[in-house]
Amino acid sequence: MPFPTPQDAEDGFYDALESGDADAMARVWEASPDIACLLPMTPLIQGPAVLDLWRSMFSQGAAFDIQVRHLAWIESADMAVHLIEEQIGGHDVPADRPPPLVYGTNLFRRGPDGWRLVLHQNSPTPPLPGAMPPGPPPG
Amino acid sequence: MPFPTPQDAEDGFYDALESGDADAMARVWEASPDIACLLPMTPLIQGPAVLDLWRSMFSQGAAFDIQVRHLAWIESADMAVHLIEEQIGGHDVPADRPPPLVYGTNLFRRGPDGWRLVLHQNSPTPPLPGAMPPGPPPG
Repeated sequence: MPFPTPQDAEDGFYDALESGDADAMARVWEASPDIACLLPMTPLIQGPAVLDLWRSMFSQGAAFDIQVRHLAWIESADMAVHLIEEQIGGHDVPADRPPPLVYGTNLFRRGPDGWRLVLHQNSPTPPLPGAMPPGPPPG
Repeated sequence: MPFPTPQDAEDGFYDALESGDADAMARVWEASPDIACLLPMTPLIQGPAVLDLWRSMFSQGAAFDIQVRHLAWIESADMAVHLIEEQIGGHDVPADRPPPLVYGTNLFRRGPDGWRLVLHQNSPTPPLPGAMPPGPPPG
């Protein structure tokens, strides 16, 4: 069984991101048209296009050093959601000016051979106090 | 059984938003510390604070006219995720300048008396072409 727990599949996902390994990334995802990605600044991507996206990014040399902090687990017998906070690092990121934290949601589903990733979604964290101009909200 | 399907619970959620009904909203959510909300510009809110948030917003007269379009359903025997696109309207929203679409993720879990909402998460949709200043990304 490749990923006996949701956490094993999640570790596989971040390991694949860090190594830029498209084949390892493909093994993490469920082989189904249901899989979906909601990455920052990107439209919803579903099905085989999810693996195409990662393969394209990795083929351009992309690799991501992401520090993960777990905020919550919501689980059932055959699905699991992990809410996390991602801190993106790496050699392109200035140590004194790290990018803002990003919320991440990973949804896993149990199949006949273990757990696989079916949805990865990012959301922005709220702006820090003072980071937004004062005034009424738009609209 | 109050919500025999995930879709019934989702309809209950948007109906409660539209009517600004805190009691109806409370019935939609699972009675557990696991529940969580990731709303735009807001930190992660978990457990009883989720219902406190809605009660507080509704007590200030907030109500939301949200048009929903389903993008995907990812389901299992006892959990279900609906990926949707939300268009927020209402009397405060100028018809000629609607706010951008927002992605929404609703996670439902089946309990002894039916399906309840356990997670509501929003993500921004990507900016429209031409909406961002040209130039390299920050960092």
